Amino acid sequence: MQRKTQAKFIVFEGIDGSGSSTQAELLYQYFQRQKIPAVLSPEPSNGIIGNLVRETLRQRLRFTTDPTQLNRQLAYLFAGDRHDHLYNEIDGVFKQLAAGIQVITTRYYFSSLAYNASNAAEYEFIYRLNQDFPNPDLVFYFDLPVEVALERVQRRSHQEIYETKTKLTQVRQNYQQIFQTYPGNWQQLDATQPPETIHQKILQTIADYFVTAPESGSD
Amino acid sequence: MQRKTQAKFIVFEGIDGSGSSTQAELLYQYFQRQKIPAVLSPEPSNGIIGNLVRETLRQRLRFTTDPTQLNRQLAYLFAGDRHDHLYNEIDGVFKQLAAGIQVITTRYYFSSLAYNASNAAEYEFIYRLNQDFPNPDLVFYFDLPVEVALERVQRRSHQEIYETKTKLTQVRQNYQQIFQTYPGNWQQLDATQPPETIHQKILQTIADYFVTAPESGSD
Repeated sequence: MQRKTQAKFIVFEGIDGSGSSTQAELLYQYFQRQKIPAVLSPEPSNGIIGNLVRETLRQRLRFTTDPTQLNRQLAYLFAGDRHDHLYNEIDGVFKQLAAGIQVITTRYYFSSLAYNASNAAEYEFIYRLNQDFPNPDLVFYFDLPVEVALERVQRRSHQEIYETKTKLTQVRQNYQQIFQTYPGNWQQLDATQPPETIHQKILQTIADYFVTAPESGSD
Repeated sequence: MQRKTQAKFIVFEGIDGSGSSTQAELLYQYFQRQKIPAVLSPEPSNGIIGNLVRETLRQRLRFTTDPTQLNRQLAYLFAGDRHDHLYNEIDGVFKQLAAGIQVITTRYYFSSLAYNASNAAEYEFIYRLNQDFPNPDLVFYFDLPVEVALERVQRRSHQEIYETKTKLTQVRQNYQQIFQTYPGNWQQLDATQPPETIHQKILQTIADYFVTAPESGSD
């Protein structure tokens, strides 16, 4: 079993269709095969605020039709859900890490900055709501041309409000800007590559940064 | 009927037991008698986020037992609810004002600063979440000694998490600080006075600041 202090908070980021969820799932399965305690804990979370976010994105729950105010409404909900995701004492990130469980999260505050900031004023607003959240131990950023992303998401059964060419182009630019100055640990991956190739690169990075051999017979 | 441009956003603030809800109700009844369109629209609002806030205050919905993190969780929910209360297109404040309806709100961002900021760092955090919300046209602040407030709230059937002496003492100090430098229109009222005395003072202020005679026969 892993030593408890080695549990890490690992985040997967990228535009819709970039395969970040698939890769998060593959890493989770890897941890399971290795008998390393791990949990897949995406944002929006499965908590009550995360549920409001999802229903708003699916346009079942309505707030306002003004795009700027809707983005701000979502920013409050995303940040409130993020706080719940980090600090709730049932299945929050810090609770899991303290129990020695690796936490794999698809989407964190980087997504709020990338998706909800349409100009400098909105970027500043979202930054203000998120600036106290801790950086994760490692971020994998999946970079993908918007044309490829759109082709992939259009195969899905329903589209979300963010899945347009204009929107995703802006989101990708925001991501690139964010990571240019991000001071924490992060790795960019070419999301046009085959899933297995990407997965192997992720395992290499995980091995380099984090995972030591299980202590045999310690538990 | 009032001219549409005359609709005002009027806020009532004060510690628990200060009678702000009673006074808001009395003003609402006055507007009704005067055939002035008005709505009582308290915060937390009746919207879906406001409901989460209320269930958290009643300790039915649980996030974390850490007092600072619980205050921050509530601050996100209060601010998200405030945004919904202002901007939703069904019964939001701006929707009502545009329709010529006076909006009477018990508790606004002043309450977030007074109730959720336990020290300078937390005050700054809550300020950051609320700094873009517009100031109301007028605020009535009901000042009340904490001892009197506690005596009043202890007569109620259930207590909320904020209703302790230490908490209310801090909340009252915060209110006094906030209004010392508040640049908008506001009036302090002595909440130990009889309700009818306070109500008459409010009507006088309303008459001075806002309400002109209804235009007879215009509608």
